[in-house]
Formats: sequence, structure tokens, C-alpha cells
Amino acid sequence: MTIEYGEPVRQAEVRPGMTVGELVEELGKAGAYNAGSLSAAADIYERMLRDERATRFFGLAGAMVPGGMGGIVADLIRRGHIDILVSTGANLTHDIIEAIGCRHYHGSAACSDVELREEEINRIYDVYLPNEAFIRFEEFMQGVLSEIRDGSVISISGLLCSIGGSLSGGILAAAAEMDVPVYCPALQDSMIGLQYWLFNQTHHVVVDAFADMPALLDRCFAAERAGAFLVGGGVPKNYILQSMLMTEKGFDYAVQLTGDRPDLGGLSGATLDEARSWGKLTGEARAVTVYGDATITLPLLIAAVLERLAQ
Amino acid sequence: MTIEYGEPVRQAEVRPGMTVGELVEELGKAGAYNAGSLSAAADIYERMLRDERATRFFGLAGAMVPGGMGGIVADLIRRGHIDILVSTGANLTHDIIEAIGCRHYHGSAACSDVELREEEINRIYDVYLPNEAFIRFEEFMQGVLSEIRDGSVISISGLLCSIGGSLSGGILAAAAEMDVPVYCPALQDSMIGLQYWLFNQTHHVVVDAFADMPALLDRCFAAERAGAFLVGGGVPKNYILQSMLMTEKGFDYAVQLTGDRPDLGGLSGATLDEARSWGKLTGEARAVTVYGDATITLPLLIAAVLERLAQ
Amino acid sequence: MTIEYGEPVRQAEVRPGMTVGELVEELGKAGAYNAGSLSAAADIYERMLRDERATRFFGLAGAMVPGGMGGIVADLIRRGHIDILVSTGANLTHDIIEAIGCRHYHGSAACSDVELREEEINRIYDVYLPNEAFIRFEEFMQGVLSEIRDGSVISISGLLCSIGGSLSGGILAAAAEMDVPVYCPALQDSMIGLQYWLFNQTHHVVVDAFADMPALLDRCFAAERAGAFLVGGGVPKNYILQSMLMTEKGFDYAVQLTGDRPDLGGLSGATLDEARSWGKLTGEARAVTVYGDATITLPLLIAAVLERLAQ
Amino acid sequence: MTIEYGEPVRQAEVRPGMTVGELVEELGKAGAYNAGSLSAAADIYERMLRDERATRFFGLAGAMVPGGMGGIVADLIRRGHIDILVSTGANLTHDIIEAIGCRHYHGSAACSDVELREEEINRIYDVYLPNEAFIRFEEFMQGVLSEIRDGSVISISGLLCSIGGSLSGGILAAAAEMDVPVYCPALQDSMIGLQYWLFNQTHHVVVDAFADMPALLDRCFAAERAGAFLVGGGVPKNYILQSMLMTEKGFDYAVQLTGDRPDLGGLSGATLDEARSWGKLTGEARAVTVYGDATITLPLLIAAVLERLAQ
Repeated sequence: MTIEYGEPVRQAEVRPGMTVGELVEELGKAGAYNAGSLSAAADIYERMLRDERATRFFGLAGAMVPGGMGGIVADLIRRGHIDILVSTGANLTHDIIEAIGCRHYHGSAACSDVELREEEINRIYDVYLPNEAFIRFEEFMQGVLSEIRDGSVISISGLLCSIGGSLSGGILAAAAEMDVPVYCPALQDSMIGLQYWLFNQTHHVVVDAFADMPALLDRCFAAERAGAFLVGGGVPKNYILQSMLMTEKGFDYAVQLTGDRPDLGGLSGATLDEARSWGKLTGEARAVTVYGDATITLPLLIAAVLERLAQ
Repeated sequence: MTIEYGEPVRQAEVRPGMTVGELVEELGKAGAYNAGSLSAAADIYERMLRDERATRFFGLAGAMVPGGMGGIVADLIRRGHIDILVSTGANLTHDIIEAIGCRHYHGSAACSDVELREEEINRIYDVYLPNEAFIRFEEFMQGVLSEIRDGSVISISGLLCSIGGSLSGGILAAAAEMDVPVYCPALQDSMIGLQYWLFNQTHHVVVDAFADMPALLDRCFAAERAGAFLVGGGVPKNYILQSMLMTEKGFDYAVQLTGDRPDLGGLSGATLDEARSWGKLTGEARAVTVYGDATITLPLLIAAVLERLAQ
Repeated sequence: MTIEYGEPVRQAEVRPGMTVGELVEELGKAGAYNAGSLSAAADIYERMLRDERATRFFGLAGAMVPGGMGGIVADLIRRGHIDILVSTGANLTHDIIEAIGCRHYHGSAACSDVELREEEINRIYDVYLPNEAFIRFEEFMQGVLSEIRDGSVISISGLLCSIGGSLSGGILAAAAEMDVPVYCPALQDSMIGLQYWLFNQTHHVVVDAFADMPALLDRCFAAERAGAFLVGGGVPKNYILQSMLMTEKGFDYAVQLTGDRPDLGGLSGATLDEARSWGKLTGEARAVTVYGDATITLPLLIAAVLERLAQ
Repeated sequence: MTIEYGEPVRQAEVRPGMTVGELVEELGKAGAYNAGSLSAAADIYERMLRDERATRFFGLAGAMVPGGMGGIVADLIRRGHIDILVSTGANLTHDIIEAIGCRHYHGSAACSDVELREEEINRIYDVYLPNEAFIRFEEFMQGVLSEIRDGSVISISGLLCSIGGSLSGGILAAAAEMDVPVYCPALQDSMIGLQYWLFNQTHHVVVDAFADMPALLDRCFAAERAGAFLVGGGVPKNYILQSMLMTEKGFDYAVQLTGDRPDLGGLSGATLDEARSWGKLTGEARAVTVYGDATITLPLLIAAVLERLAQ
């Protein structure tokens, strides 16, 4: 028989009090559809984290901080599991909001948005964010920005590091503390960007859009091996994957958690195999995509991998 | 402020060695998107199972048995958590295949289906089922069917109960043992149906399509309260939900795990709120839909609920 | 170069007043993602309809009649383009409702289902159906059913043909008129089924669940070639595809319009390639899946194919 | 009756030779699910284009140019229907590739990406792009970049305008010709960005990330009314919607074509109603989302609207 096939599917068993690692073990025994992919993702991510010679990239897209997933990212940074973080501006905006003490609230997606507007509550699916958070955000941001010397030219990661250094919790603070660079190519496309625009109406500071690229590409050239953990797609996914293109190398490990699908052609739903054709992943790279809501798959995966690493 | 909103979103924390119940607790604290829904589903299902006066329906659609989820359903039956099961014919076919000792195998969705055909391997996404399983299935089925007295009129659940009584593992065996009726309105639409057609070419047994309805509707009329746990949509979902329509009552609890989406209009992706307009659910029913792959959400949810029940 | 690749992508051009056929021509020149698939579907369906020796199956799942797509199906029947129709019970229920003069209404998915319940309006995503339609439906159905001789054994398609014969518009009427058999394996799972249950409380008529299979399989054995056009998945898709399994043949043409995705393992989202591994499609079959909402893709495709046939 | 509901659903009719506008008319009469939304989108976009006092934004995300949709965007620019374009870097990269005479090719998503890599073919779902295109792209880009005076500080839209001025077909050329600003906040995240990095290793030109914001915000403040047409989500959607936040106004018209879904929380799938809570859309704004593949919905919609405008 020329078709290779693997282990028999074993009917998953669940037991009261089982650990998350044990559950993911059962998903692997079942081994089908996205449960199989999630189990494979745990194997790959464990291996990526155990590989001392791998540089580990983390991409963060989707409204993950308002959805309560920012703490896991900050924790991964503090545990030393992220070397380079690429994020959307929105996640960093909401990270700052939480770090300065404002809160997001459980709400409902079945509501009147016009009424919410009247009450000055901003909605992110079923999460509510009272507008006053943005007033405190503005105070904080203008304070940080006012520290920058007029006439200077800064990088995006430099600006984000200054912000993180002024905070005591969350992703940016953890990154600043652990010296992990945070890249955000589309910073303009966020409330941080709007605050910067406000600030720069009376100041003259240039944010050099490309200032971060040399350091990032140096890391790519220096990396013996490389791994990417991608939550969502968007700019973070593409920016991470393209960064290896200029070297002769590609990523050796890649895990992607996405709710998008490949047949629409967009990068966010594209398979990681597609990335092999571009050379973004090596031909032998261990890679898997788990389709689903990352607010479920991310905690499940990370808890299982941390359990393995602790053994 | 007239808009009510709930608890603050708390950034989920994951710890090595945490139990699945603890993880779902954290998803509930984060509380957003499908993680929030999954946590709500655990609350509802726990309550449904603790409610001694509720009749509990379970709908099983999607290729759950080939995907290794049949064991969880059989276990729920054995634990007394399912009173009435409605399934697609395909899940029952694959349940029989596993119960007579044939196996499904881990395969790959990126393959040549023409080659698979030549090798006589049937594919279900990334699961492979060698065709020889159907040869043994045919032997088993014809054996069971030959026991039926010629000239008789039988019901679908009666036939399925006979099959279950001839098996020693899996869903149908558990149901037969625990006296749980298994309904399968579209039995013709399955390999069981094709075996029946083969058998009936030389026999004369009538399967009365509607023979199961009186008993089912009696259960609905008798139910003090009712709960529905729906894996996937399709016939099982609709058949369960419509069964209450003839009574003055509706379901009091409902949990739905689906990968479909509402905006296409189909029942499988329809919200459970929609079912309220029909009176299938009561106005006050506790109900939630978790969008995603049930091979992940089902084990996660059941392990968490069993953990709570064991406390 | 061993990798074969086709025509260059041509940027689609749209012009005021262009016909639907011209638009689909442009989609084919662009040729990517689901636009490319839709163009391929038009080619396959045109070929299927031009092939005099092909038996043409049509599968109808999803809430297509409430969504205004029933007229297209009835028209295809009247034009002689459907030889065998397999439908969900729900589509036939709503077809009867329209045929007896009741209407579905444009509504909104953002509404209070509890309020709708109070107003006795049933919701199907953004379509509203006032409950009084079911009162007239009951009158009609009980009238038709009362014609059946007590003590008889009938088939599902026979029952549906009687219903169609009592109507003057819609799918069932067209099928009865054109002598196209309508199969509905899960008839119990519909309002038609509930009406039957009501009727049979005071009558004794047996609906033989399997009575339709011999005639269907005879058609399959007799078919020189076979084509399947599948709107949605569910029972209609599986029932059609499995029907060829008992012959040595498979489908030669297949088009599937679905909103589901393959990675969840379920049949509704499964690729048609997967069906080749089972032998449901021949190895050489021309087949394509178009992912998307069939309320858009179906009219687009049919208008384009009718335009080609008219040339 | 307090629930308002609209017109009866009319079964769509398709006729050979009907125009695209007539087809969309029929979708509107059916009026359900995404067909109803597409018809509403045509109404809104027609109104937006007829409103002389509205500033019209266009957001372009997803792999639309490789999918053959770039020609439609260029045509809309030339017809004067786009005042401000916001795009991903990838679409602009592929626009340049086509404009300098390289081609994308029809391929297949079912292929070996490792083999494609060996053959130096890059894959975008079922579209193939031979790597040699990037060699010619590099020549072109380095040529354009070398024209920039060393030591200068430029904006992203300025750079893109220079590129467009050097081309004779496609989106960037049309925009340069028609004086339509093209914004691309995440330019670094694209092959254009990588070319810039290469160039800047031996030059000293600063791209000021925020240089475009004052002009964009001036347009927002000046706009009497504003409309947004959004293909896909990502940075273009957010950047366009947030641009109005700093004014007291919001968008008055919005159409979104997306394949994402709201329940994952991400912006790309978020409803336009959600944007009302933020004030990005006015409370009275006419807005609709069409879920599906934009390679189908975009040409369909634009052809129908152009037909109406031509009447």
C-alpha cells in the first residue's frame, strides 16, 4: 500500500479533574480535524520552545486584549518564550488601557449600537469599553509623548518601548522589562496613532516608518533557527513571515490560530503550506494551522504546552 | 446608565497542570467571543444535568465518530446524562464500524483522492477508512437484519436498538444497555440504509418512517422541563427542536456547538434565539451557541462539566 | 517546468448593462478563489445540462425557499433540467406555504425573538413568517392527507407527489406536473412530518421509509452518466452521492454551492474530491465547489448557464 | 402589530440574457440573507456615488489584485468614484507587478508547495506567481527609489504617487493620474517595504510614518458627508473608519464585503453596526455588510451600480 496512514483514531476520553495537558493528549489520540491540528500545534510549539537555538516570533492580531487574552501573551514574554513580538496597534491600545487601570466589560452583541453610542460605550462584539477609558488614555499618551525631545527621529519600537517603560502591567510593560522588541508596522492605524497625530500638531517628532527594519532583519540573519506563533493573520502574520524572505532561510516552526479560511485568497486564512512556496517556511518546517476562535484555542494550547515544559 | 453591563473582562491566566475545569473558569473570566460562550455553555449544561426534572435530548451531527468524539457520547449515555439521542445515520454507521472492531486512521487532507480510491481508502477530511471495514459492516448488518421476522413492520429506533443489542461498545451499545432511544429520521441516508435496501431486496420488512413519533412526542408532553445539547445542526437539531412545538412548552436549556454561521439562513448555523421566535425554546430559556470545531469544544466542555459534577 | 499552470489572471472588467453571462465570463478570466470556482461551475453545469445521456440530480438544503430561491428550482424543473430532486423537509414545507398563498416577509436579524414570539412571527435569519401561515398549512395538509385510503402503505415521494398535485405553483407542483420524483428521506423532520403525526393519530397509514429506494437505485443503475447539482449539504447531498455507490459507477459531473468549510470534517463542507475517494464521483468527474451564500451564487450561476443554453 | 416588517419575499426569477442590474434587482426582491444585503449594498453605493457632497473612501484588503479584482478598482478611480484609497501593501505590490508586465497565473490550491518552491513559483491560494516577477519588480522599484533625493523625508502616499507616476496601468497609475491619494499605513509590511529596506541600506531617506495623517484628517474635517466602501477588513477598514473619529462626524454611508464573521471579535468581521457605537458611523448612516468572497460580490455589485448610474 503506497498511501501512508498513521495511528488509528482513538475515541477521546474525558475524565473529571483531568489536566489541560491530558485533554490535549486525548485530542491527539482522536487526531482529526482541528482537534488533531491543535494537538500537532502543541507538539510543534513545545519543540519550538525547547529549541534553545531558535529565535521565536509571536504575531498578535484580532481583538485579543479586549477578549482577555493579553495576560497570556504578557506571561509568555515574562517566561522568556517570545523573542520578537509583532502586534496590531489595536491590541497595544487596549493593553495600555488595561495597564492604566481602565477596564473592558462583559456585554452583549445583541444590543442597540445607537443606544451604546448615546451612553458613550464602545463595543467590540460582546465586550463593552466605556469611552472615558479614552480620556485617561489620552492623558497617559500625551504624557509619554511629551517626554520625547522635539526634533528627534524615532522608531516605532522605540516609541512602544517608552510606553511600556511607563507601565507596570500588561504586554508592553513585560516587553520593556524583558527587552523584547515590539513591532507594529501600522501604528498609525490605531488610537495610539491618533494620539500621536494630536501630539504632533504642536511638536515636531518624526516616526521613521522603516527604522525598525534593519534590527529586525539583523535578527533574521543571525537566527540559527526560527519559529513563528501566529494569533490571527493580518499585518503581524505577513510581517513576520516576510522578514525571513531576505535571508536564505525560512521558518523552521510555525503555528497559526485563525478563524479565517483559505478559499478566499487572503493571507489571514492562507495555509502555512502556501508559505512554503514563497520560501517563508522551509520545505521541512513543522507547521500547522488550527481553525477556530483563538480565545479558546490559545489558552488551551498554551496551558498544555506549559504543562509539558514543567514536567 | 440604562445599558447593563457585566463583570470586567479579566485577562485569562493559564498555569501548568491546571485542570480543564480551571481553564474553563478562566475562559469565563475573560468572557468574550466564543470563550465566553463556551463558559456560559458549561454553566447551562451543568444546570441541565443537575436538574432532575429535565428531560435531556442530545443531537449528534457532523462526522463526530470518525473524528474520535463517539466515546464521549457513549460515556454521557452510560453516566445517565442523555435521555433521548437523535443522530445522523453516518455517525451510527461509523459507531458500528468501530464497535465491530474496524478502525479509522489518521490521514491527511492533502492527498490524491484518486489514489485513495485505487487503494480502496475512503476519506473524511484527514481521517482514512479502509474499504474493508464496509465488508465487515455488511456481514454484521445482514446478520442483524436477518433476525427480523419477515412481514413485520418496525420502527427506526427499534431497528437501531436491535443493532445496539448486538454490539458491546460504542454509542448504540450504550444506548441499548441504558434503554435510551436513538432516533435517526433520515436512516435511509446512510450505509445502514443501503444495507437495509440490500436486505429488503429478498425480504419484506417495512420500516415505518413515523413509528417513532408518538413515543417521542409522548416524552415531550410528559417532560416537566427539557434541555437540548446539540453537536452540529442538520436533522438532529431540527428534529429535537421541533419536537417541542406540538406541546405548549419549549426547551428550557439549550447548548449548541456548531461551525456554521447564521447569516446564510440555514438552520445549522441559526442562533438559538431564532428558535425562541418559533417557540422551540421558551422566552426564558438559558441557551448559548459556541461557534467552532466540536472536536475541540465538545471534549473541553464535557470535561469541565464532569469536573463540576464530581465536586 | 513540471508544474502546469494555466492562463494568466486577467483583471476582471465590468461594464454598465453587461449580461450575467458576460459577468461570469469575466469572473472566469480573473479565475481566482471562488470567482474562479463559480466560472468553472458554470462550465460544468452547462455541460451537464447539454449532456442528453446524463441523469441530473438536484439537492436542495438550507432555507432556500424562505430566502426566495424556490422559484429558480421550480423553473429548472419546468425547463427539464432536473430529473430527480432531493430536498429537506423544511424547503418543501415553505414551498407549500407559498403555494397556498401565504407569504414570507423581509425582516431583520437584529430583533427581539421574544417579542416576535409574542407577535406570533417565526424568524429565519432576516425573514419573518407569521404563524397564521401554519394554520392554513395545517388545513391544507390535513385535507391532502385525508384523501389517503386508511390502511395503505405509501412512499415519501408518493405523498409528496399527491401534495404537489394539489398545488398550482412552486417546486412540488412543478415536480408533480413534470413527473420529477421528489425524495425527502427525513420527512419526519419537518412541519409536514408533524402534520402527518397529527393526522395519523386518528388514521392508520404507514409511510414506508425505504419504499423510495428501489426506484431511486434503478435510476442510478440505468443512468448512462450522472450529474449532481448540490445547493447546501445535509441529507440531500449525502443521499444523492451515496445513491451511486451501489452501482459500479459514480457521478460524472458535480457542482456544490455551500457556506460550510472542509476542515470541520462534516459532509456539508467536504470537498467533492473527498467524494472521489469513496467512489461517489468518478476519478475523471468534472466537479467544483463554490463557497459562499447560495442566495447569491445560485441565481448568478443559473442565469449565466441559461444564457449560454439560449445561444 | 409593533414588529415592523417589510415587503413579501418574492421568489427570484432568472432569465437568459438578463443584465447584472436586473439580477441584483431580483436578489433584492428575494431580499434574504446575503442576497438581500448585496441588494441593499447596491442601493447604498449608488446613493453614495450620486451624492455630490460626499467624500468617498475605498478600502482594499485581501489578495484582490492577484485575484483579478484590481482592474475594477482602477476603473472606479478613473470614473471618479474614489476620492481616497487605503490599501494593504500586498495589493499595491501585485498592482505594480501587473503594471510592469508580469503576470499571475491560474493554478491550483491542491498542489505540492515544496515542488512549487523548487520551481520558484509563489502561490496565493489557486493563483501562481513565478518568482522572476520579483526580479523585475526589484529593478523597477530600485529605479524609482533611486530618483529620491538623499537626505529627504517623504510620506508613504508621496512615495506611492511617485511609483504610480512611473506606471501606465493599474491602480497606482490611475490614482496618480486622477490625483487620488493612496494611503498604506503598513507599507513596511510588503515587498515594497522590503525593497525600500534594500534601497535604504545605501541611502538615507526617511519615510515619515505619520506624514500622511494631517492631509487625511483635513479631508475628514472638510467632508460634508462621507462614505466608505470596504473590500475586506484589516488595516484599510480600521484606518478609514478611525479617520472620522477625530471629527464630530461619522460616515454616512458604508458598504463592507468580507468573508470574516463577527463572533470572533476581530475588526475584519465586525458588523458596521458595531462601528456606530464608536461613532465611526453616524446613528443614521446607511450601512450594510455582505458576507462572502469579494471576487464574486465586488464585480456583481459594481456592475449593477454602474448600470444604474448609466441610466
